[in-house]
Amino acid sequence: MELQSLQPLAQQLFADIRGLTFDGVGVTRASYGEGENVCAAYLEKFARSEGLDVVTDRAGNFVYFDPADTRSGASIWTGSHLDSVPQGGNYDGLAGVVAGLLVLIAVRREGITLPAPLKVIGFRGEESAWFGKAYMGSGALWGKLSSADLALQRRGDGISLHDALAACGADMAAITRQEKLLNPAEIAAYIELHIEQGPVMVAREIPVGVVSGIRGNVRHNKIECWGDAQHSGVVPRWLRKDAVFAVSDLIVRLDNHWRALLERGTDLVVTCGVVQTNPAEHSISRVPGYAHFSFEARSKSSDTLEAFYQLVQAEMHSIERERGVKFVLDRRLMSEPAVCDAQLCDLMAQACRTRGIAHERIPSGAGHDAALFANGGVPSAMVFVRNQNGSHNPHEAMELADFMLGTQVMADTIAAIPAAQPRVGTSL
Amino acid sequence: MELQSLQPLAQQLFADIRGLTFDGVGVTRASYGEGENVCAAYLEKFARSEGLDVVTDRAGNFVYFDPADTRSGASIWTGSHLDSVPQGGNYDGLAGVVAGLLVLIAVRREGITLPAPLKVIGFRGEESAWFGKAYMGSGALWGKLSSADLALQRRGDGISLHDALAACGADMAAITRQEKLLNPAEIAAYIELHIEQGPVMVAREIPVGVVSGIRGNVRHNKIECWGDAQHSGVVPRWLRKDAVFAVSDLIVRLDNHWRALLERGTDLVVTCGVVQTNPAEHSISRVPGYAHFSFEARSKSSDTLEAFYQLVQAEMHSIERERGVKFVLDRRLMSEPAVCDAQLCDLMAQACRTRGIAHERIPSGAGHDAALFANGGVPSAMVFVRNQNGSHNPHEAMELADFMLGTQVMADTIAAIPAAQPRVGTSL
Repeated sequence: MELQSLQPLAQQLFADIRGLTFDGVGVTRASYGEGENVCAAYLEKFARSEGLDVVTDRAGNFVYFDPADTRSGASIWTGSHLDSVPQGGNYDGLAGVVAGLLVLIAVRREGITLPAPLKVIGFRGEESAWFGKAYMGSGALWGKLSSADLALQRRGDGISLHDALAACGADMAAITRQEKLLNPAEIAAYIELHIEQGPVMVAREIPVGVVSGIRGNVRHNKIECWGDAQHSGVVPRWLRKDAVFAVSDLIVRLDNHWRALLERGTDLVVTCGVVQTNPAEHSISRVPGYAHFSFEARSKSSDTLEAFYQLVQAEMHSIERERGVKFVLDRRLMSEPAVCDAQLCDLMAQACRTRGIAHERIPSGAGHDAALFANGGVPSAMVFVRNQNGSHNPHEAMELADFMLGTQVMADTIAAIPAAQPRVGTSL
Repeated sequence: MELQSLQPLAQQLFADIRGLTFDGVGVTRASYGEGENVCAAYLEKFARSEGLDVVTDRAGNFVYFDPADTRSGASIWTGSHLDSVPQGGNYDGLAGVVAGLLVLIAVRREGITLPAPLKVIGFRGEESAWFGKAYMGSGALWGKLSSADLALQRRGDGISLHDALAACGADMAAITRQEKLLNPAEIAAYIELHIEQGPVMVAREIPVGVVSGIRGNVRHNKIECWGDAQHSGVVPRWLRKDAVFAVSDLIVRLDNHWRALLERGTDLVVTCGVVQTNPAEHSISRVPGYAHFSFEARSKSSDTLEAFYQLVQAEMHSIERERGVKFVLDRRLMSEPAVCDAQLCDLMAQACRTRGIAHERIPSGAGHDAALFANGGVPSAMVFVRNQNGSHNPHEAMELADFMLGTQVMADTIAAIPAAQPRVGTSL
């Protein structure tokens, strides 16, 4: 299977979809929202023009497949997500869906028979930026959306995840019951191509990465800090309950712990991406009585996440005592770290060697839909494509040549999977 | 002059105006905006019903006076401001205007001749919460609004101070030329009654305070911190340029300096009342590439303000180097500390003693319109009234009995001012 000739097609797909979802700064494709719908409508039309078929699964995700392949039994899944963060980049998610479609097209054009039928998934709702929760589309398939998850509201318009899913035709009765909407035994493998999002592959000059595992995370979307709003000129320091000083103090303490843990070789990143006083009442001449912020820690190790989380709580209690404030935490969200399938990783590395493509095994700092499949018992793997300027920002950049190399490696890996037998559902 | 019988009238004025400007949480009377206008319209109607007259000065402020007092020569000014912070309290500002009106009414009803004609000023635009600048109404009178000030935009609707003043009928040609719209030589004294706003008088159980001086301040409405927005999972600590960690670091360093200065007996308060990441692009899964915050330091000493400001700049440079961010400061705003007139303070203390009212001399932590008069060469003084729960918040509370004591002391002080001669304009 040779995909090189499909590069102009890939270029056109990326350019068209960027144009359709450009927001003036980057691309905006809201989970279960406008940009995601526009992207899906374009891809459906394109897929049909190539003789492919498209169905919507029971969670509202899109499944592209070759209607000529009527074999029953386990199938190989590939794909990624259609949504983006606000003012995000064009490739985070979309690259994996386009890669899967290119493989389907190459299979049709070259008359190849894969070891099993190939399904390309265009997930909805992977980015946590919209509802404060990641992997919603794949999570719904795996029966992992709780009632608290479904009550989450989308930034901007406040629509609940429940209503957003329902509007996309999802089976809300089953999702609310947390039923699995897929049978892991019928999935021979899950393979996802994704841009790296980090700076490592650029620095090491490798176009293709074989992902060894995926960092998990522990999160709070919103931690509130309540102090006491007072006129800024008249309350002495010892009588203040300043929410901004308290939050700043906490963040600096977490930074100090983080630095100390890094020195011991611990895998950890810590982020407070959102910090806000209350625009309805804050003022330069008022001691801030309220501030809220987001918290996220990521690690390859569940133990590290738990240990760091304990540190956060201890520091909060300490600051509450010292500064007279009160921290109020929303629901703790946890995504478990995941390990990629060793056999699939070996096939992928072999594909790289055969083609003479420089590659390395690297961990994924970001989370991906693949983590749910890996933790659900499906042999799972990921191909990383080098990209400049990271992701979750408008400057995200990927060389199309690198993308074609990654797609080729994924195609070769899929073609090399031992002829799939319906697997015994070990995880059901 | 006995004001006690006017207490029910004061109670009604406060209740009516609170009702007219209640926002569901506190009162909102925007500078040059709706709540301020509503308050002014009510007071104009009330004043005329009491036989008083009202004119608008060349800066859009309101001047209430007794038309029966036709004496020429220097006049005594009293009053305060009509505006409030968003979701603020009912007494901050309004109390001083009501107190002045009560004195005018008592003078009329009792047929008293004051040492000089009394003008009661209802200033517009004293609170910095709306345009990021304080004392706009009195500042316009003193020719102190620069072109940069006039370009400031009001929170919420973005209307410029220039346009807001113009809409109130102010003489924009003169204000733009920074002309003085008053003659200090024609003001025998400026006396302002105000709630204390701080916790000192409640703690010390004194209803009336004789203000010795007014803290000045140095401010930036908006300091921006620019870092680099990146995916939160994939960028290691050493490659991050995290705006939130940088701002938190700065705030904690300032807190440490502040604490150290307090231990040396320095008069200082430090506040960062506003902190915001950018809602259009922030996310829990993105290293924040941008945050902005406000900065304010207040002190009775200009030297302390300058010295602390130098510390702020030094720490910013240090953090820029350590964390790879860049701080961008807007215009520095400075209000000079002010000293109250010793003779007026003595008259006020004597009035308290004569009436057997417990009182103390205390400094004002907050700024007031009176500071401009004091620094402009007008003998100026302030009466503080004890109030619970501070100010700039909806819970601000003042006992009406305390207010009447303060108003009585102010009336007695005004009546005791040596018969005013037109003063030589020493400050012109």
